[in-house]
Amino acid sequence: MSQLVIILVEPQLGWNIGSVARAMLNYGLTELRIVNPRDGWPNPDATATAAGADLVLGNTKVFPNFREATADLNIVYASTVRAHDMVKPVYSPREGIAKLSENASQGARVAMAFGGESSGLVSDDVSLCEGIVTVHTNPDFSSLNLAHAVGIMAYEWSLMQGTYSHSHKEAPSLASKEEMNLFFDHLESELDERGFLMPIKKRPGMVKNIRNIFTRLEPTQQEVRTLRGIVRYLSRDRS
Amino acid sequence: MSQLVIILVEPQLGWNIGSVARAMLNYGLTELRIVNPRDGWPNPDATATAAGADLVLGNTKVFPNFREATADLNIVYASTVRAHDMVKPVYSPREGIAKLSENASQGARVAMAFGGESSGLVSDDVSLCEGIVTVHTNPDFSSLNLAHAVGIMAYEWSLMQGTYSHSHKEAPSLASKEEMNLFFDHLESELDERGFLMPIKKRPGMVKNIRNIFTRLEPTQQEVRTLRGIVRYLSRDRS
Repeated sequence: MSQLVIILVEPQLGWNIGSVARAMLNYGLTELRIVNPRDGWPNPDATATAAGADLVLGNTKVFPNFREATADLNIVYASTVRAHDMVKPVYSPREGIAKLSENASQGARVAMAFGGESSGLVSDDVSLCEGIVTVHTNPDFSSLNLAHAVGIMAYEWSLMQGTYSHSHKEAPSLASKEEMNLFFDHLESELDERGFLMPIKKRPGMVKNIRNIFTRLEPTQQEVRTLRGIVRYLSRDRS
Repeated sequence: MSQLVIILVEPQLGWNIGSVARAMLNYGLTELRIVNPRDGWPNPDATATAAGADLVLGNTKVFPNFREATADLNIVYASTVRAHDMVKPVYSPREGIAKLSENASQGARVAMAFGGESSGLVSDDVSLCEGIVTVHTNPDFSSLNLAHAVGIMAYEWSLMQGTYSHSHKEAPSLASKEEMNLFFDHLESELDERGFLMPIKKRPGMVKNIRNIFTRLEPTQQEVRTLRGIVRYLSRDRS
């Protein structure tokens, strides 16, 4: 299955392009296309902020206009917050990426297009896109940094693909019930000796409360050993 | 319900702090705390990249250590990619934010803590957190920009709260069935006149295919007017 292509249309600042490359590679995306970059290409500012994402910058293709940049692609969604008064579906990032991902799984070449820093995509370009994706932000402060917007899409794409699966590290061995019971025996006998679990008619409830605390902890074997050491040391006579 | 507090522990670069403030305010978060910022506070570099998120920078509180920064909070999760070999739940951003959001809805004050640019959170600080949140990234290029990591969490928080609901703009009026049928009448009569819908035994299937194309379009009234104009103009005799 092909990956999501990122298209930047007339970006202005090289350091934003570099940040985009970094955010892309964080999620394994390597296909960046740029339409008519203001300061030309390659751009040393981009290298500075790419933080080592040279693989992406080295692969970047530059095009003179949006139409040529998308010529070989099948489905392109426009990332925009502006209403373009077009009859076109508007998706959240999660919805839009799910659609693109489905298209890609059926063999389509898919992309997300982002406009320049100051004014975003022009309507002519949006009109060539199959859908619009809008990140819902604070209406009083809605302008996302370009690399952040790309990062959100790359993040959602990565989750959708399961590219980097949630690899829980191997859990340490949890304490057995027997180990827990030996700990409780130890603790409670020390407490009994010191008259903590008194009066006797309240003892069952107090014991239950204490056991609840430590069982909810779901401790490991090592942690139970530590707890027993604590009890042992606390219950020693002062020397 | 209280909002998500963002804690930056020993951040180095002012422009990263400013980018964090911008990403926070994009999603309506305004409570930023900083532990021991390398270059002091306030920091003019932060103002430069905050892109107007002065509300966040003005609110920012500075603390000498992690413990004091979290003293009045109830639940703090640590954002980290490093394995800290601790018995602590590890969540994806979506899972972790769901947990924090649930806690906040029950009255808890919740926060996400992020380490500095070069080495992240130290184990002593992580040990004070109730959970770990890890963004799953490309293992060969895993280091997220600090503001990007904060942005992912703020984005997930905003989605979880439904802070900025998916406000579809009012849909333009769709064409009525009668308008569609008048269009089909027009189109098909022009095509009949030109012998397109031949031979006659294939006509029903051809008409059905054409109608399917335009009904799937679900056009607006304006679009049907446009389509009829196209048919009218195409079917004029050349002058």
